[in-house]
Amino acid sequence: MQRHKSNAFFPISAATLSELNRCVGESCFFTDEISLKNHGHDETEDLLFLPQAVAEPENTSQVSALMRICNREKIPVTIRGGGSGLAGGALPIFGGLVISMKRFDRILNIDRRNFQVTVEPGVITENLQNTLKSEGLFYPPDPSSRGWSFIGGNVSTNAGGPKAVKYGVVKDHVLNLEVVLPSGETIWTGANTLKNSTGYNLTQLLVGSEGTLGIITKIVLKLQPHPTQNLLMLVPFRSAESACAAVAEIFQSGVTPSGLEFMERNAIDWAVRYVGETPVPIQEEDAAHLLIELDGFHIDSLMADCETITRVLERFDAGEAFFADDETTKTSLWKLRRNVAHAVKRNSVYKEEDTVVPRAELPALLKVVKQVGAQYGFESVCYGHAGDGNLHVNILRGQLSEEQWENEVPKGIRKIFQFVKSVGGTISGEHGVGLVQRRYLDIVFSKTELKIMRQIKKVFDPKGILNPGKVV
Amino acid sequence: MQRHKSNAFFPISAATLSELNRCVGESCFFTDEISLKNHGHDETEDLLFLPQAVAEPENTSQVSALMRICNREKIPVTIRGGGSGLAGGALPIFGGLVISMKRFDRILNIDRRNFQVTVEPGVITENLQNTLKSEGLFYPPDPSSRGWSFIGGNVSTNAGGPKAVKYGVVKDHVLNLEVVLPSGETIWTGANTLKNSTGYNLTQLLVGSEGTLGIITKIVLKLQPHPTQNLLMLVPFRSAESACAAVAEIFQSGVTPSGLEFMERNAIDWAVRYVGETPVPIQEEDAAHLLIELDGFHIDSLMADCETITRVLERFDAGEAFFADDETTKTSLWKLRRNVAHAVKRNSVYKEEDTVVPRAELPALLKVVKQVGAQYGFESVCYGHAGDGNLHVNILRGQLSEEQWENEVPKGIRKIFQFVKSVGGTISGEHGVGLVQRRYLDIVFSKTELKIMRQIKKVFDPKGILNPGKVV
Repeated sequence: MQRHKSNAFFPISAATLSELNRCVGESCFFTDEISLKNHGHDETEDLLFLPQAVAEPENTSQVSALMRICNREKIPVTIRGGGSGLAGGALPIFGGLVISMKRFDRILNIDRRNFQVTVEPGVITENLQNTLKSEGLFYPPDPSSRGWSFIGGNVSTNAGGPKAVKYGVVKDHVLNLEVVLPSGETIWTGANTLKNSTGYNLTQLLVGSEGTLGIITKIVLKLQPHPTQNLLMLVPFRSAESACAAVAEIFQSGVTPSGLEFMERNAIDWAVRYVGETPVPIQEEDAAHLLIELDGFHIDSLMADCETITRVLERFDAGEAFFADDETTKTSLWKLRRNVAHAVKRNSVYKEEDTVVPRAELPALLKVVKQVGAQYGFESVCYGHAGDGNLHVNILRGQLSEEQWENEVPKGIRKIFQFVKSVGGTISGEHGVGLVQRRYLDIVFSKTELKIMRQIKKVFDPKGILNPGKVV
Repeated sequence: MQRHKSNAFFPISAATLSELNRCVGESCFFTDEISLKNHGHDETEDLLFLPQAVAEPENTSQVSALMRICNREKIPVTIRGGGSGLAGGALPIFGGLVISMKRFDRILNIDRRNFQVTVEPGVITENLQNTLKSEGLFYPPDPSSRGWSFIGGNVSTNAGGPKAVKYGVVKDHVLNLEVVLPSGETIWTGANTLKNSTGYNLTQLLVGSEGTLGIITKIVLKLQPHPTQNLLMLVPFRSAESACAAVAEIFQSGVTPSGLEFMERNAIDWAVRYVGETPVPIQEEDAAHLLIELDGFHIDSLMADCETITRVLERFDAGEAFFADDETTKTSLWKLRRNVAHAVKRNSVYKEEDTVVPRAELPALLKVVKQVGAQYGFESVCYGHAGDGNLHVNILRGQLSEEQWENEVPKGIRKIFQFVKSVGGTISGEHGVGLVQRRYLDIVFSKTELKIMRQIKKVFDPKGILNPGKVV
């Protein structure tokens, strides 16, 4: 569904279009309809907003040159990575220029001695991980989209993924960033060190800022040795709430899994249908599953941890655990989990709510989601990174009318988010605020907090040209 | 040595002093000479700057009330924790009001289910750690000053300590902060969740901001299960450079120690003399030592890792490792390490440089430090968190003249910092910029970077009353 925002910006003039074109060259500048359409949507619902032009710079100076012109002419600029966003962060809602980072696709330096990599933002995350793995190095954050999302987009949204429960999210792995400001000036945000108490932490301010403060052109990531061992099991539960309740208890036992994923019955069923194969017999009575991974360097320790977990699960009416014995089975299980979102999308347009709470509040959150759904007349499919308290609530459009979808459902979402806030949680764990969660920010931030964020935005982007209408 | 800054602020009037006094009550407001002196210095060299008054508020509203007055009257406010700072961050260089956080000494909530603790900033770090440990919970960051520094000061400087090499620095453990702004308004910077992609990361902006942006009044920290096993060994080396070179190689072997500390011969000798006991025979030919700790939950895995390390060390001309077999010996070894700074201080006034580089650059850094010392005529004692590439360079005043100490030594420090920057490092790993490192900021930040930091400061503190003259 294409929409238009009342435009706070003037269209780009023909003369300026030529000037922008010259910054990157004919072959990297597009104004044709197909290109504009391709850069007008991401994975967020069915939203479409056309930009006026698309540029594909290939180095920092070209980005600077583009920004100098856009800043001078007050042209809205939206940065685009892989286009896998679920909050509309890459949608050019005011038209203007989309800067695609796809040509920033080089791994610049793998510094094995220091366990660091310097990478351009347009590298696909999984490609980066595979390259590093071949050298025994590990960059843990693994969003489900890692096969096509860009590392720059992961940084911009502070992405997570299953491994975050043990290794932390993207922000925990970013040491330093090269950033082009709207003025065209280039800064580095930090140092290539594990510790840094020198000045304000601009690195962490940029991580998760969703393209509203600057354009990331180089990324220095912290790495670690790649674990050599892992165990993976899928555990069925008779009730979704007891699956959620088991999560916090696993951590209480002293074990930290490297993945602890929750899937409601619908989620796994649809994923099986979407992927078209399953190594695991799903029983009629299974209401939900936990996918549990342990990793490390000593298999005996992992086996001992696995026994500890098994003893915990006995207290939660879990069915028989299915252990993935070989790489093929492990890959299949992860493929199921990674494809839940795609599977849901095939069933229905949906709104993705990226709720996150302290993990022991998960059972209560799940209950609230279902109650609110009953009250406001929507179905939901829930799954996600349970170990982090990060529950993806997919609200299905199904047969809902435009009126219900646009007006009633958001009231229900508001109720869910109010609950989330009341238990110390927030409205996005890893997807970002982008466009679609903006209207709920008042639930989690006070006026003073929002005012500070808006003033910080102004420090970086006084004319408000970078990803306008997003986040704050 | 007492100093005075040309004062950009007017003295606090008698009427305002009474008003401030009423905010906290007679018994928590001080203007007597002893109190002013006690709050006029920290552990930085021999610097002393007297404030005009000291307030000891005990809750957030009192802090707000104080700040509203100070903001209205443009009174400089310096926040004070335990007073263990090494960069002069808590020195009231423009006089004004010191707010001591010592009455904010409560652990408010240990949330065992969610592995979180909410704590006031005036709790002594070691007390917090011990309380948590008695419940099987672990808050890793352990600066040497943990026996008397406050957790709030640790957050304000983004402190580190030996455990940072495996568990990260303070910033990696802070989830959320309650902060009073100079206006007197109170904000929370984040959420009590492990993941958060909602708005700008104000939490990480406040961590390490050294009391220049707001006053931290509550801290939510992430915890983890306390490791049940550990191994500790002290390894002598014939040369300090080969000790440093071994550090990066240990990580290359795939093992991540929970402590990897370097001490030059002088550092350990002086610490032994200061502490007055040593369980370990130090040999004539030992030029430096590494103190290596491994921790975890499975002793067999630790033993295997220990063997891996031992094999690495053989390649670096290490002497025979001394293993601490019992708790008493472990405590003694750590006591030696933790007392190096005190021991150096007893020998001489010194300037503490908190250099940090990518860890494989350590041997080169050590070499540069000694070369520069020879060139500029100063002695140094080097030790620190080698696993993080964080080398504390203690430059001894010894018999240097005022002229040498004030003019020549800083030229040498500048050379060292320039080297640090050239290899991707920075000028403070865990102590902060405070007062004494400010003059070197131009080495690590461009004008644009500094301008952005100053503008961020202005967003929080438009009148510039919070810790003026520090950091940016």
